[in-house]
Parts: sequence; C-alpha cells; structure tokens
Amino acid sequence: MDDTFDYGGDIFGDAPEPVSVAILGSTGSIGTQALEVVRAHPGRFKVTALTANSDAETLLAQAKEFDVHLLGLTEGGVEAPSGTTVIDGSLASAEVAEATDASVVLNAVVGAAGLRATLATLIAGKILALANKESLVAAGELVMAKAGPGQIRPVDSEHSALWQLLHSIAPDQVRRAIVTGSGGPFRGWTREELGNVGVQQALAHPVWAMGPKITVDSSTLMNKGLEVIEAHFLFGFTYDEIDVVIHPQGTVHALVETVDGAVFVHAAPPDMRLPIQLAFGWPERLGAPGGKRLNWATLGTLSFEPPDTDTFRCLRLAYQAARLGDTYPAVLNAANEVAVDAFLGGRLPYLGIPEVVERVLDAHTPVAPSLEGVLEVDAWARQQASATVAARSGAGR
Amino acid sequence: MDDTFDYGGDIFGDAPEPVSVAILGSTGSIGTQALEVVRAHPGRFKVTALTANSDAETLLAQAKEFDVHLLGLTEGGVEAPSGTTVIDGSLASAEVAEATDASVVLNAVVGAAGLRATLATLIAGKILALANKESLVAAGELVMAKAGPGQIRPVDSEHSALWQLLHSIAPDQVRRAIVTGSGGPFRGWTREELGNVGVQQALAHPVWAMGPKITVDSSTLMNKGLEVIEAHFLFGFTYDEIDVVIHPQGTVHALVETVDGAVFVHAAPPDMRLPIQLAFGWPERLGAPGGKRLNWATLGTLSFEPPDTDTFRCLRLAYQAARLGDTYPAVLNAANEVAVDAFLGGRLPYLGIPEVVERVLDAHTPVAPSLEGVLEVDAWARQQASATVAARSGAGR
Repeated sequence: MDDTFDYGGDIFGDAPEPVSVAILGSTGSIGTQALEVVRAHPGRFKVTALTANSDAETLLAQAKEFDVHLLGLTEGGVEAPSGTTVIDGSLASAEVAEATDASVVLNAVVGAAGLRATLATLIAGKILALANKESLVAAGELVMAKAGPGQIRPVDSEHSALWQLLHSIAPDQVRRAIVTGSGGPFRGWTREELGNVGVQQALAHPVWAMGPKITVDSSTLMNKGLEVIEAHFLFGFTYDEIDVVIHPQGTVHALVETVDGAVFVHAAPPDMRLPIQLAFGWPERLGAPGGKRLNWATLGTLSFEPPDTDTFRCLRLAYQAARLGDTYPAVLNAANEVAVDAFLGGRLPYLGIPEVVERVLDAHTPVAPSLEGVLEVDAWARQQASATVAARSGAGR
Repeated sequence: MDDTFDYGGDIFGDAPEPVSVAILGSTGSIGTQALEVVRAHPGRFKVTALTANSDAETLLAQAKEFDVHLLGLTEGGVEAPSGTTVIDGSLASAEVAEATDASVVLNAVVGAAGLRATLATLIAGKILALANKESLVAAGELVMAKAGPGQIRPVDSEHSALWQLLHSIAPDQVRRAIVTGSGGPFRGWTREELGNVGVQQALAHPVWAMGPKITVDSSTLMNKGLEVIEAHFLFGFTYDEIDVVIHPQGTVHALVETVDGAVFVHAAPPDMRLPIQLAFGWPERLGAPGGKRLNWATLGTLSFEPPDTDTFRCLRLAYQAARLGDTYPAVLNAANEVAVDAFLGGRLPYLGIPEVVERVLDAHTPVAPSLEGVLEVDAWARQQASATVAARSGAGR
C-alpha cells in the first residue's frame, strides 16, 4: 500500500522455507490444480507425497516431475521406481497421510472414501487442506473433535471465502452466513424439463470446470446442501444461520452478515487454485492464479436470487438431513454418491437422484455417529441406494 | 454463532461503561443521526458536548434532551441555561473539542471549517470520529501527522467500509481499493443535459438523504474525488491504488483487492447511523439501525460501471489536484465549497462548478501545507472562486 510495495508477486529475498505438502487425490481436478500451484511458485512448496485412486500412469509422471518418493494407489498395482515407496489398497490415502512428513496434507479424495484420510491427517497433527467435503458431511462431529484450532483449512471456494471473512470478525458479532451457488446448467428449469436431462447436459457447468461427481452435484444443488453441512461443522453455524443464494455469475462466493447489518462479501475469479494456494501458504497470499483479476468497473451486473427447492429437491433434502443430524447426513451423502454414479452410468434418470436419496433417508434408523457407526451406515446406505436404483430400473423396464 | 447467541441486540448484563461522546455539528444531517444512535442505545453512550453553526434553538433542545452542559455556537448568540457553558465564535467547535471530557469526538462540521476541530481533537488525545472529510482533503499531511494509531475512526460509509475491511488484511497483501458511488441523480446524462440542471434536481439524490452541500457534491462526483483523497491519507493508498466505480444501488460501499486476486467487499443498507455507531462503539457492533438488513436472496442485481469523467469533470479535477499534492487539494476543496454555495444560491449554473474549480486550481501557486499555509491558501482560493463566480455572472448578463 505504499510506494515501495512490490506488485511483482513473490519476494524471493524474504521467502520462507518451502512448505511441504502432500496431495491425496493428485490425479483428479483439484489434485492437478494443486500441482499447478506448486509449479507456479518454484521454491515455495515441496511435494512429499501423492496418491491416486487408479490412474497409476499419471501418478508416476507427477512423481517424476515433482521428485516425490512416497506414493499411494487405492486400486490396481504399480511398479515402484527405485527409491520410491508405494502404499496400495483401500486405505492407501490414509496411510500416506500418516506416513508423510508434509506439514500440509491436501485431501482431494472424491467422496466418503476421504474420511479416513481426513482423520489420519488430523490425528497425525498435520494441517488439513480439506477439499473432501464428504468427510465433514458424513462425520462432522468426529472430524471436528479431532481438529485443533486452525488445523483445517477449507479448499472449497465458498468455505475458503467464509474462512477468510470470519478471521476478521468476532464470533459474537456474526449473525448469518450465505454461500452462493451459480445455480448450475439447469437454473430456471421446471421439474418437467429436468425429466429429460442427459449426462452430457449435467456435465456442462456454466462456471466451474470440475470432476464429474461434483459437477452433477452442482446441477442438482446437492453440492450446496453438502456445503451448508460443511459450513455448519467448520464454523459452528446453526442451520438457521446458513443460507444459500443463487448467483449465476460465480463472482461472489460467500457473505457474512454482522449483527449491525453490515455484510462482508468475498469475491474472486472462479479458480480453485486460489483457495488451494491460500490453504498451502496461509497466512501468506501469493500472486493471482493465472494473472486473473476481477475488473469491477467493467464487471456489469451481479445478480442474486433464492434457490428453487421445489424443483431442485436435493437442496431441501440436504437441509432436512442436516437438521435431523446424527447419521442422516452420512446417509444423504452415501445415497447421493450411489445415485450420481448410477446417473453417470446411465442406470438412473436425472430426477431419480433426489428420489433415491429421499427413499434411503426415509428408511434410515439413525445411530450415534462414531467412526464404526458412520462406516456401517455408509455401507448400509450404499447398499440401500443400489437396491433402490436396481428396483427402480427393474420397475421401469 | 451458536445456539445460545442472543439476536436481540444489546446485552445489557454485560454492557460496558457508557462511551462519552461530543458531537460537533449536532444540528446537521450527520449530527442528528448521531443523536438518533445515542437515543436508540440507552445507557451505551453519554453526550458531553454539542456544537452547531447557527441553529441555537435546535441546539438548546438537544442539550435539554441529552442533558448536555457544554455547548458551542459558531454564529449568533444564545442565552446559556443555568449550569451550561456556551462557547461562541468561529473557533467554537475546536474549543469545545478541546474542553470536553468526551472520549470520542464526532466532527460533523460541514466544510473546511472543521479542520481546526479535527486538529484540536487529535492534539487533545481524543478519538476522532471523522465525518468532516474536508479536514483530510485540505490538510491531510498535517492531520495524519497528529493522529496516533487508531485515533481516527472514519464516519463516511465508504471509508468506514474500507476501515472495517482493512482491519483484517495485512498491508502488504493489499493491492487496490475501490470506493463506490451511486452516480447521483444525473448518472448517464450528457454534458449538454447537465447545462440546464437546477438546484432542486441536484438536491434529489437517488440513494442517500444528506445535507445540501454533500448532495450537490455527490451529483457532480466531486464527493467521490474528495473521498479518494480522504482514503489516500487515512489508509496510505497511492492514487493509482484507489479507484472509483459507479454502483447505482448504493448497497456496496467499498472493496479491497488482495495481491492474490481475492476481493473483500463491504455492503450495508445505506444508513449513516451504521458508520456512526461503529465509530462510537468500536470494536463493538450494536444492532442494525432501524432494524434494516439486506436480503440477498431478493436483492436482485447489483451493477457496476466506470465513472464518466468527461462529463463529470469534478472527479477528474480531484484526481489531478490529488496527484499534484501540496496545497492543491486544499484549493480544490475551498473553490468547490464556494462554487457549490454559489450554485445553491442561484449565482452559478451547474456546469460552472467544475469551471470555477478548474480556474482557481490553474491560478494556484502551491506552498508547503503547514496550518498557516493551508489556512492562507484556503482563504485565497475562496476569494479567487468568489471573484470567478462574480466575473462569470457579470459576463453572463
């Protein structure tokens, strides 16, 4: 802010030691963007571990480029290069999270499979950069009980925005939070129109380029529901204190209202590298990813509208499961994962997603959310959801 | 943010000692709203002194209602009630600022007349709630040299917004600030259309209810220019780091961009009681003034566009004077005060305002901005501006 300030980005003279990071889910959308962040800031970050679900080839190429010698692979096998340890099997990500000497572990595993890695990271006392929102949805109480102050740094544009905003506001001054959503490709559509939605349509998100599962969740608004639950656990908001507002431009990510009626808003170009680099480097702020900046003078208009929860029933189901608490959010999440997978595989029509989720929620008898309880419920919900998909498909023939 | 949080406003059980406040300019728009804040929060604030320019009747009524025994009146005389001290004369506000035992002094004097009161407040070691932006425009270096850290709390919606935003961001992370303006009643008008603007049109502001001088300044965009200069001195931004963006809805007041491209935005209902109560009670946040809150779900659209500085030349003149520095901003301000006064009095057409300001700036030979220098330059600029108005009027006959 003064004349001597250097706009040129990183100031190498004062650069701290590189931050060591492990990336769980490194071949996915968030994982590859995390590696772009590392690539864009030479000397600032050191990658100590990488894990993937099944894409061994990409994993090995990443390991070579970033000189990483601890790898994890959940499915399939891989020939370990000399001097490299490869952990395989269903617990690979969690075991790598425990074994790595990284100070920050990015959990970008997709789905509830990320829960064990989340817990392993927290228990090992490492900073958790959390992109796996399902950890919190399925087992928020468990996860937050293991997390020390500041140990979780959210990697989700909305939660990163809330996290940044809430740093400066005393908790008793906060009245309400809002997470925004673009509304997805079907904003303004009727229920009838949604009946014919195909996979390619659901994967065409207007604002964000993301993996297929979260892209479908964005189109159904289930993603906003999961985010509301995530915000509840991360920041302690009650569900009456968290609203969802549709904002098609994707410029504003979250808002916090204080008791006096002031509203603090976080805006940024829609680019996941921003929350990733902030979670890696916090409290430091590096340069703008890709040089992208918002130009407010030529921005035009920003619009806001309430979500249509009659048409997009997943958001309503998420609030219902959230308020019920216990293992209902875990069921919501597991049933949704199965339903989205069935939709992507052509085994379930688009409107079958909320239908399956609702049926499984209705059939659930909640238990206290211990790790064993959550895992059992998760397995039960997946089985129920699969059976519902199959029965529905059979009935539809 | 938890279940036990009391939304009901003030928590009397934990109420701190009342904050003692003095209000300079108590019969004007800001002054009366400051008294509304005091009235709305019984027991939180104690008024210890009031001053007015010439409205003795209102001043005495206020003194009676708020049980105030130290008064100031700049013009005219008044019969002091028993037990009440009345300071009169041109230095009344400054002398009251010095004499009062208030911990916070609100300087809501209109125009450059507020400078001495600003300096008196700072030198006396009291917190200055600053609504008189002309103090900073005319003598920013002088004022800031007397101000300790946190001693000035801005009472202007844009600067209060910046002040709140900047509390949470390290100075070396800040890249740019934007103050918004509604664009006033003539947004989108051509220069030709402005030629026929009358006083009543200029006083019809679309968003804010304010005093006549600042309302005219808002319509010419001079007010934004003065605010840019104010932001420069208050927060240390260079003029390349402060932009003005037109935002007709008046919902967003200021924005701060950080080096990584994130943008922090402050929005609030347009109500001066918010910055006033924040300046009085900081760091506490009281309830929303008048219960007014923004509803983002039904807000509709917010629009942003660049200011038209070819048509609204006052903003361009302000940036020019600001960049020249020294006593140019003092000249800008003084000439503008005279020109606006002449316009309000029917002695100058609307487009004569920038014309007079430009001529006086052109004729100025700058001096180093000492108090004596600033006061001399202020007097010179007023005389020059008056002469220009008179000459123009004579030529127009």
